[in-house]
Amino acid sequence: MSDIITLAHGAGGRLTSELIENVFSIYLEKPLKFDDAAVLDFSGKENELTFCTDVHLVKPIFFPGGNLSLLAIYGTINDLVAMGSKPLYLTLGWIIEEGVEINLIKELANEIKKASDECNVKVVAGDTKVVPKGQGDGVYLSVSGVGQKKSSLSINSRNIKEGDIFIITGTIADHGCAIMLAREDFPLKSNIESDCACLDKLILPAVERFQNEIHAMRDPTRGGLSTVLNEFASSSNICIEIDEEKVPIKDEIYGLLDPLGLDPFTITCEGKMLIACSPNIGEDLLNMLRSHPLGKDSNIIGTATKQVPGRVILNTKIGGKRFLDMPIGENLPRIC
Amino acid sequence: MSDIITLAHGAGGRLTSELIENVFSIYLEKPLKFDDAAVLDFSGKENELTFCTDVHLVKPIFFPGGNLSLLAIYGTINDLVAMGSKPLYLTLGWIIEEGVEINLIKELANEIKKASDECNVKVVAGDTKVVPKGQGDGVYLSVSGVGQKKSSLSINSRNIKEGDIFIITGTIADHGCAIMLAREDFPLKSNIESDCACLDKLILPAVERFQNEIHAMRDPTRGGLSTVLNEFASSSNICIEIDEEKVPIKDEIYGLLDPLGLDPFTITCEGKMLIACSPNIGEDLLNMLRSHPLGKDSNIIGTATKQVPGRVILNTKIGGKRFLDMPIGENLPRIC
Repeated sequence: MSDIITLAHGAGGRLTSELIENVFSIYLEKPLKFDDAAVLDFSGKENELTFCTDVHLVKPIFFPGGNLSLLAIYGTINDLVAMGSKPLYLTLGWIIEEGVEINLIKELANEIKKASDECNVKVVAGDTKVVPKGQGDGVYLSVSGVGQKKSSLSINSRNIKEGDIFIITGTIADHGCAIMLAREDFPLKSNIESDCACLDKLILPAVERFQNEIHAMRDPTRGGLSTVLNEFASSSNICIEIDEEKVPIKDEIYGLLDPLGLDPFTITCEGKMLIACSPNIGEDLLNMLRSHPLGKDSNIIGTATKQVPGRVILNTKIGGKRFLDMPIGENLPRIC
Repeated sequence: MSDIITLAHGAGGRLTSELIENVFSIYLEKPLKFDDAAVLDFSGKENELTFCTDVHLVKPIFFPGGNLSLLAIYGTINDLVAMGSKPLYLTLGWIIEEGVEINLIKELANEIKKASDECNVKVVAGDTKVVPKGQGDGVYLSVSGVGQKKSSLSINSRNIKEGDIFIITGTIADHGCAIMLAREDFPLKSNIESDCACLDKLILPAVERFQNEIHAMRDPTRGGLSTVLNEFASSSNICIEIDEEKVPIKDEIYGLLDPLGLDPFTITCEGKMLIACSPNIGEDLLNMLRSHPLGKDSNIIGTATKQVPGRVILNTKIGGKRFLDMPIGENLPRIC
């Protein structure tokens, strides 16, 4: 393990996992195979609480399709939704660099109001710190969330069974590409926008209807779809086989990434959920998801098998097979 | 209100209040008179949950008497304890600057383990982001906490009554002075150490014993004792009269601050609690607090009166009277 923190340690890929395993595991309750939110034990109740946190830092703060506030609120809510949990309360921690215009903070606060109203969550506490000029870069936003779930639900990354199918609720890699285009001066133009979105209204009705037939969910963000697939394969000790041609990827995304030699499976996503469920509910769940605007491009992309437990196999478009590995770092820092 | 974020906006004083009132109030449930932790509504239960967040950034990261990790864990726990709530679960958000040595992160993780064991809380979730070199300064740590309190308790800043007395559980201004000495090259030497500490074992037994006779509590941190007193006076719309000679302040602190023209009432504290309670439990509570090592210097320092509602009056050592105002900014940035 490297001795120095690199940007890759914050990219959500393998080096982040190493940092968690080798350093942070010392104080974590469940040091290895954890989800994006924790279930809190208030035993003897029909409902349990879920609790999660995320730090958000995106550059630029406003980008096509979204901004730091939407990303932060939606991101935290999606972590709770991924546990089958109804988001209820949020807290915010602001780290603002000296010299930032108050108007920017006002705009961001307005966006937080919009997003929390849309998602019907309450912001109940906060903290504000300002760092001297040169010790930050604009605004960093830390959001924690508390939600409530039925105790009977057990949706988590250790719960995937052989034969389960995997559904992705829409196209991948849009967010990462939108940020790249907003930041770099590419010769090609594109209309790619971030797809950051709040998934409660798409996902929670499906959880209500299909209950324990949904085994695991996770919104792929940093590290892309390949990271979540690898985490699932490792946590449940199963093999995941994915058919590349079934994964929704926009032509513009291929057009942008191919010349750069970048793999869309490792590019940051937002506003999409990966769902592992029993094969017998597959078609019904798919139809339900596709009937919602946020899920119209949903597709069944793969299956859990016994092939190579703990690994992800990609059946490529051209008929080959390769392991889909967790990216070591990420192509861009400050992306979500 | 200024158009540009200054360090004073993060100092916990008047400009922080203005930022909350003028900007952040747009999305807050209780826009004005709130406490350091929120009570979550899970109605119909004997117990309520409390939820709080704090961002911690101290320079230097290790200082006499403590470090960033202890400050962060203790600070979040003290915010929950101040509601009369038993701390249970924590989440951590790390913002690490590229180039930081992993050994530093390991040391900080060890200190988190130590502090969370000491306080009997569980770290249940986390997030790690890395910012490029020059977009941070070492490590910033965001901590959120969930605790549980009896629904029958109503300890909050709006609950102080005329005739209530105020107890501070020990000396003020130690932390701010320790950081100042650790950072600046003063000609005078001193043994002042930070007093950062976890107050659950000092305070929760008192809450258990005196129940609803304790009306409000708050741990003074940024903005010092004067900020908390002013927040209490404003939230409960009472006048608070404080006797300067009863406030425990170490001689070394006066010796350090006097030549610099700094007021100990505005200097950051840690590990101390300000308690407003019925006068009839005053002596018993005081004796109970003094019997614990963390409360040995506890003292009754003032009373709630009708004099000038919303303001704090200081009866000075030399026999004068002055308003004790909330500081506008703070003397040092990056202090807790």
